[in-house]
Amino acid sequence: MTRKILVLPGDGIGPEITAQASRVLAACQARGLDVEVEEALVGGTAYDAHGEPLPAETLAKAEGARAILLGAVGGPQWDTIEDLSKRPEKGLLGLRKNLGLFGNLRPAILYPQLAEASSLKPDVVSGLDIMIVRELTGGIYFGQPRGIEERDGERVGYNTYVYSESEIERIGRVAFEMAQKRGKKLCSVDKANVLEVTILWREVMERLAPEYPDVELSHMYVDNAAMQLVRAPKQFDVIVTGNMFGDILSDAAAMLTGSIGMLPSASLNQSGQGMYEPCHGSAPDIAGQNIANPLATILSVAMMLRYSLDEPALAERIEAAVGKVLDDGLRTADIAYPGTRQVSTSEMGDAVLAAF
Amino acid sequence: MTRKILVLPGDGIGPEITAQASRVLAACQARGLDVEVEEALVGGTAYDAHGEPLPAETLAKAEGARAILLGAVGGPQWDTIEDLSKRPEKGLLGLRKNLGLFGNLRPAILYPQLAEASSLKPDVVSGLDIMIVRELTGGIYFGQPRGIEERDGERVGYNTYVYSESEIERIGRVAFEMAQKRGKKLCSVDKANVLEVTILWREVMERLAPEYPDVELSHMYVDNAAMQLVRAPKQFDVIVTGNMFGDILSDAAAMLTGSIGMLPSASLNQSGQGMYEPCHGSAPDIAGQNIANPLATILSVAMMLRYSLDEPALAERIEAAVGKVLDDGLRTADIAYPGTRQVSTSEMGDAVLAAF
Ligand SMILES: CC(C)[C@H](C(=O)O)[C@@H](O)C(=O)O
Ligand SMILES: CC(C)[C@H](C(=O)O)[C@@H](O)C(=O)O
Repeated sequence: MTRKILVLPGDGIGPEITAQASRVLAACQARGLDVEVEEALVGGTAYDAHGEPLPAETLAKAEGARAILLGAVGGPQWDTIEDLSKRPEKGLLGLRKNLGLFGNLRPAILYPQLAEASSLKPDVVSGLDIMIVRELTGGIYFGQPRGIEERDGERVGYNTYVYSESEIERIGRVAFEMAQKRGKKLCSVDKANVLEVTILWREVMERLAPEYPDVELSHMYVDNAAMQLVRAPKQFDVIVTGNMFGDILSDAAAMLTGSIGMLPSASLNQSGQGMYEPCHGSAPDIAGQNIANPLATILSVAMMLRYSLDEPALAERIEAAVGKVLDDGLRTADIAYPGTRQVSTSEMGDAVLAAF
Repeated sequence: MTRKILVLPGDGIGPEITAQASRVLAACQARGLDVEVEEALVGGTAYDAHGEPLPAETLAKAEGARAILLGAVGGPQWDTIEDLSKRPEKGLLGLRKNLGLFGNLRPAILYPQLAEASSLKPDVVSGLDIMIVRELTGGIYFGQPRGIEERDGERVGYNTYVYSESEIERIGRVAFEMAQKRGKKLCSVDKANVLEVTILWREVMERLAPEYPDVELSHMYVDNAAMQLVRAPKQFDVIVTGNMFGDILSDAAAMLTGSIGMLPSASLNQSGQGMYEPCHGSAPDIAGQNIANPLATILSVAMMLRYSLDEPALAERIEAAVGKVLDDGLRTADIAYPGTRQVSTSEMGDAVLAAF
């Protein structure tokens, strides 16, 4: 049966970058990849058209797809929507939750061609290759109860940080397996000296460890992890953590490379169905100018081929093509520096296709 | 009336570093500072002696003191205490909560003499001077309900992230006033696109802003703040945020300087009573070797003089003395590099006293 791919351009630069990634996907089809591609609305543009950041039609298409390619959601014009449940971000969170995409893989890789872009000293980051495994459908993002209410004559805001053993075990296994395929080191990040929920987290990770005897498990408090990422990031191989800490640490780790416009991500469920998106946001300030970097989105297609479509050879071809255009000195504005050739979003797409 | 100072050496390197800071405090007394200094146990050493990380006697002394100088708490030998309420960290959290020390000031300053120590490129961090204002007695650290319990046949861990309007307003005012005394820019960090409690946080900050017309207020999501600290930290002047985000961001910011052994902190309540401590931890791996850096603790004495004892001139003298020993090329192991003179903890204390 032909597998379905759903492309969700979203907001801001989303349409521009997914357009280039879609061209790469089409090139894969031309090379024999048997998939059917459709598009739908999500985020602020969906809200504008249908009053909902995740219209029922989009969700239905997403549920029927083997993989989703998402651009980005959000923008200042929607930040003032009073009803939080209608904000663009809720489209994204709704997709994650409804499809059970609990396993978020966020690589932070320093491309040798882009070493100069980092704000860190070259010896601190050269060769950096970290994989952050973030739990994506639980924790404080989805915990109940939550809200803002009147108590003792004033308003109080509250959210609940909660994890069950089975949720922790499930993401733990993803992380241990990832470590087995990589450098065999797993660092679990928590705040077990303060938060009960992360005491349970640490306990479950410890309990899983004997099943993965080839993986060396360590634990680190989240404040220390934030420091160590700045001080000596190459000490890490795979990091596993909850939704909120993962949000913060994966962005910090991505920024260590100085080229967040290069970093893809995958969000997977138990059956390998996945959503693929760049690590960066919708960059409303540069939307519509054909200057955004499409490479993170193109590399997200590579992740899709590897994790949801079982086409590692095509994934490698895309990654090699991206490597080639970087070697050739082509750069979008975000990663350009003197001596390189600055190109537009679509020219970058052209170049990747030519190298593919 | 003679004001009381309580010194709490704590665990690990705590006794060594507070010993040097106490010498500096004694030198201030010799120059006319009218205070009475006493000591007490806290953390793991208090647990070993009394079965409690915060014995009643220590708390009573702390309540009676105008200011507290704390070394550090914690160490691996206490990480296995089953009862979380007996862990060393609970001594620290108990002091914060019982004394109402809600306003945590964490400067991240790059000493020009130590620019080499940073893992970031010199132009990214030179001249760095950020003040992080962290709420310290609320948020998820203290929120109820919390615990680990059986639900539907498995264990579930949970904590509550909660802030009331008055708690937010109180820390907001500290931050706005701090910004008024500094560069007049305040960045409030939240996750208002996901968490209700931080929607209220943002709203209260907005409501306060008109009372401080000279301060430019901005808002940033915590994941973006973690990125921006890595990418371009000098964009920040004062950052205000809750307990958990503040824990993470202040450690990341401190590490940008590469010399966390240099950074003091203050935790204040409404009446100016305060606890002062280095930003770094108890470093059990180097405890007892007379090699730890006492400067953060010595600089904590300077903060104490400024914020709790109203002795800015003495504070400046201490800071100038520290600047002088750095200029002279003296370095403890953590900040030493070729061409500087490596000294021990006590030799560093000697040098500061000589320069005082
Ligand atoms: C847009 C936002 C809700 C989202 C998150 O916090 O998960 C984003 O920051 C991310 O990391 O994918
Ligand atoms: C020791 C720990 C409980 C503490 C905290 O998380 O507040 C520490 O990390 C700090 O930042 O002072």
